[in-house]
Amino acid sequence: MSDESQELGITETKSHKPGEWYAEVVQKANLADYAPMGGFIVTKPRGYAIWEGIQDALDTRFKETGVDNVYFPLFIPESFLEREKDVVEGFDPEVAWVTQGGHEELEERLAVRPTSESIIAPFMADWTRSHRDLPLRINQWCSVVRWEATETKPFFRTKEFMWQEGHTAHADDEGAWEEVWTRLDQYEEVYEDVLAIPVLRGKKPEHDKFPGADTTTTVEALMPDGKSVQGATSHNLGQSFADAFDITFADEDEEEQTAYTTSWGLSWRAIGALIMTHSDDQGLVLPPTIAPTQVAIVPIWQADTKDEVLEYSREIADELEAAGVRVELDDRDERNPGFKFNEHELNGVPLRLEIGPNEADDGEVTLVHRPDNEDSVADREGIVDTVEDHLDAVFDKLYETAEENLEENVREAHSPEDILGTIGKHGGYVKTPWCGDQACEEAIKEKIAAEIVMQPLEDEGGQSAGEVPEPEREECGVCGEPADEIAYFAKSY
Amino acid sequence: MSDESQELGITETKSHKPGEWYAEVVQKANLADYAPMGGFIVTKPRGYAIWEGIQDALDTRFKETGVDNVYFPLFIPESFLEREKDVVEGFDPEVAWVTQGGHEELEERLAVRPTSESIIAPFMADWTRSHRDLPLRINQWCSVVRWEATETKPFFRTKEFMWQEGHTAHADDEGAWEEVWTRLDQYEEVYEDVLAIPVLRGKKPEHDKFPGADTTTTVEALMPDGKSVQGATSHNLGQSFADAFDITFADEDEEEQTAYTTSWGLSWRAIGALIMTHSDDQGLVLPPTIAPTQVAIVPIWQADTKDEVLEYSREIADELEAAGVRVELDDRDERNPGFKFNEHELNGVPLRLEIGPNEADDGEVTLVHRPDNEDSVADREGIVDTVEDHLDAVFDKLYETAEENLEENVREAHSPEDILGTIGKHGGYVKTPWCGDQACEEAIKEKIAAEIVMQPLEDEGGQSAGEVPEPEREECGVCGEPADEIAYFAKSY
Repeated sequence: MSDESQELGITETKSHKPGEWYAEVVQKANLADYAPMGGFIVTKPRGYAIWEGIQDALDTRFKETGVDNVYFPLFIPESFLEREKDVVEGFDPEVAWVTQGGHEELEERLAVRPTSESIIAPFMADWTRSHRDLPLRINQWCSVVRWEATETKPFFRTKEFMWQEGHTAHADDEGAWEEVWTRLDQYEEVYEDVLAIPVLRGKKPEHDKFPGADTTTTVEALMPDGKSVQGATSHNLGQSFADAFDITFADEDEEEQTAYTTSWGLSWRAIGALIMTHSDDQGLVLPPTIAPTQVAIVPIWQADTKDEVLEYSREIADELEAAGVRVELDDRDERNPGFKFNEHELNGVPLRLEIGPNEADDGEVTLVHRPDNEDSVADREGIVDTVEDHLDAVFDKLYETAEENLEENVREAHSPEDILGTIGKHGGYVKTPWCGDQACEEAIKEKIAAEIVMQPLEDEGGQSAGEVPEPEREECGVCGEPADEIAYFAKSY
Repeated sequence: MSDESQELGITETKSHKPGEWYAEVVQKANLADYAPMGGFIVTKPRGYAIWEGIQDALDTRFKETGVDNVYFPLFIPESFLEREKDVVEGFDPEVAWVTQGGHEELEERLAVRPTSESIIAPFMADWTRSHRDLPLRINQWCSVVRWEATETKPFFRTKEFMWQEGHTAHADDEGAWEEVWTRLDQYEEVYEDVLAIPVLRGKKPEHDKFPGADTTTTVEALMPDGKSVQGATSHNLGQSFADAFDITFADEDEEEQTAYTTSWGLSWRAIGALIMTHSDDQGLVLPPTIAPTQVAIVPIWQADTKDEVLEYSREIADELEAAGVRVELDDRDERNPGFKFNEHELNGVPLRLEIGPNEADDGEVTLVHRPDNEDSVADREGIVDTVEDHLDAVFDKLYETAEENLEENVREAHSPEDILGTIGKHGGYVKTPWCGDQACEEAIKEKIAAEIVMQPLEDEGGQSAGEVPEPEREECGVCGEPADEIAYFAKSY
C-alpha cells in the first residue's frame, strides 16, 4: 500500500507555483479528476456538493424573484444557430457537432449547445403573445460545450462546464435593465455572502460583449495571484434576438411590439474562484456557508478513555446536527488524531472540535479554526451557539482577507509604461482613462497578456442604462487621445 | 385574439384516443412542447416543476442511504464504449456521435452518453483500492441520448431524456444484491407514496436485460389503457463491468479481489406514467404530493363585495402558505370564476377553494376536489387541518382507482389463444408459465405486440438472488413444453 499520509500533503506552494498548487488541491481534496479526453473533468462527490450548495443559493433567489426552471434540448440545429449572426460568428469556431445518429449521417448537423439563446428564443416567440405574458423568466441548470483548445484547468477551463442560464423577455428596455441588475445583484450576493469573495461590478468593453448583446455586465473577483476571474455575467440583449426570432407581443392597445430580452449565467468557474481565493498550502479552505462539512469532531482517546470520550463526542455531534450544523464525527479506529487533523485540513473543514478525556471530564471542547489554526476552549454548555459564533468568525476572517487583497490591488496608471509596470509588479487591477479603441487594449495585451476585464458602472441612479462614469483625467492611458471612459486592465483567468 | 376559453378544452377523450388525448394534455396543461428536431421536447415550467418534485423525493432518499452525487462528462470516447462488449452491441445502433469540434474533425468519435457505465467504471477502478473504499455509491442527474427512430411521445419516447443514474461497487455479490433491492424499494416508494401509482416488482427476462447485466429488476406500472410502463430499473451487473474495467480491491488479507457493481435509473418517463394514470378528459390530474400548486383559491365577487372577499381569501392563503401548503390565490381581474375553475382543472390542481361573500360572512369555505368535483363546506376555523385532510383524501382516491385498475387486470392464461384473447380483450397483464425460450415471446409479440414485461420475484427471503417462483402448472403457456418460470405478458410503452 502507498503511504497514505504522504498523499495528504500538498507539495507545491500557492505563492510560487499557483497553477500546480491549484491542480494539486483539486485532486488531493477529492474535488475532481481529469477525464480521459483532454478538456473534460469528472466532478467527484466533494466537488459536486459545493456545486449543489451554489445551485441551492442561487435557485432559491431566482425562484423568489419570479424565475421558473425549464429544460431545453441539448442539441441546436445548425440553421437555428445561424439565425442570429453574432451568435454564429461568436460560437461557430468552438461548437462540438453531432453528425451521426446511430448508423446514419444526419441531414443537418446538430450543435451541442454552447449556450441556448438560439433554441430558446423561438419558443419565447411562441409563448409571448400579449403584454400579459411578459415578463417571461426562465432558467435552466445544465452543461454546455465549447471546444476551446486550451490546457485543462478544472472548473476554470474545461470544454464542458456546468452552469445555469437564465433567459427573459420584457415589454420595454427599462424592464430588461431591471432584470439585468436583479441578476447581477444576486450573483454579487452569492459571491459575497456565500462564497466569501468580494467582487467588483462592471461592464465588458464593447468588443468583448456576449455575441448579440447590447451590454454585458459582469462581477469580477480578484484572485490572490493578482488575476481577475469573470464571476458571472448578465446581458442586456436589447432587441437583437427578438428581431432575429420574432419575439413580439400585442401591447395594451393591441399594437404589435418587439420584446427586449436578457440572458445571464453563472458557471462552475465559481468553484474555481472559491478554491483559488481561500485555500492554502495545507489544502482546501472553504467558508462555512458553502462547506459540505462545517464541523469535524475528532475524539482523542486511549484504550481506557475511549468509551467516555466517544460518548461525550457523540452527544455533541447529535446536538449540533439537530440544530442544523453539518457535522461529522470522525470516530475511525484505524486512523490516529494527527492523520485526521491533516485530512480535515486538506478537505477544507472550517472548524475542528478536538475532544479528549480532559475535555470530557471538564465539560469543555477545544475549537480550532481553518485556516489559521486559532484555537480556544469553550464550555460544552451552549455548544450550538458557540459553534455558530466560531463559524461566523471563520467566515469573517476569510472575507476580510479577500477584501483586503481587493482593496490593496486597484491602482491608477496613466501611461502604457505605468500600466505595464504596475501590473507586472503587483498584478491586480489598473484603472485608467480609455479612449474606447480596442487597439489600445491590444497594445497592452501583446506585452503582458493583460486586458480590459471591466469598466466600472455609474452609481445606482445611472445604472439603468449601463453607463460608465467619466474619468477625471481626459487622456487615454495608452494612446493619450481624448478619453471619456474608464477601463480596468488586469490579467485574467 | 384567439378564443382562449376554447384553448382550455381537451378535445380528445382518454378512452377513445389515448394517444391523442395524452399529447393534448401535455401541451394544453403547459408541461412540454415539441422541439424543432423530431424526438426532442422542451420541458416547460409546469412540467419541469414535476420533475423537480421527483428529483427531490428520490435525491433525499438516496442521500439518506449513502449515495453521493457526482458529474461525469457528457461524452464517452468510442474506445471506452467498446470495452464492455454487451454495451457496445446494445447501444451502438442508437448512439449520437460527435465527430467535429470547432472546425476540426476529431481523431476519435465521441458518443453522447446513452448511459454512463463505460465512463464511470474506469474511475471506480481508480477509486477502489481497498475494501475500506467499498461500498462506493455515486449518482448523477443528467440527460442521456438514444437515437431511436420512433414517433415522439413526450416523456415516454424522446431521443434525449432526463434521468438519474446510480452506480455502485461492492465487495461481494450479497452487497450488490442488497443495493439492487434498496434502490428498487425506493423507486417503488416514490411511485406509490409520491406519484400515487401502485407498481409490480419483478425482473426482466434474460433476453431483455440491460446490456452487461446479470439481472435487471424493474417496477412496472399499469396504465388505464391496459399497457405497462417500465417505471425504473435496478441492475445487478455482477462482475462484467468490474472485469472489463479492472475494478479490483485489496481485501482484509491484502488479497486482490474483483468487485461487484450495480446501476439503477429512473427517467422522466415517470412523468409520463403520472399523466397517463390519473388525468382525465378535463385535463391534468396530479396527486397533491407532487402537484406544484396544491390548492387554488378562487374568490368570487361582485363590485360591492370584492374588498371583503379578497381580504378573507388572502388571509386564508397566507395561513395555508405559512403552514407549508403550496397555495395560489387567483385574484386576476380579467378572468371570471368559471374560466379560472376550468384552468385550474386543466392544470391538475388537486383542491380548489371557492370563496364568495356568503363564505366570507359565514366564516366558511367551499372545497372542491379534482378530479371528481366532490364539494363540501367547512369552517374557516382550522382551515390548515381541513385542507390537509382533503389533500389526503384526494391522494387516496387517486391511489385507490389506480390500485383497482391493477388488481382487476392481472389474469392467468394457459394457451397462446388464451393469452392473445385475454390481452386483446382486456389489456393488462397475463400471467402464464413460461419455458424460458425467447421464441415463445416472439410468437405472441408477432400477433399483438405484447411481450414479457416482467417475471415476478420470490418473496423477500429469496429476493437476494433475484429468483423467480415456480409456476403451479408446469407447461409453458405458449409452447406447452416444461416450464419452471412465470412470465407476465403485456403491451407496453
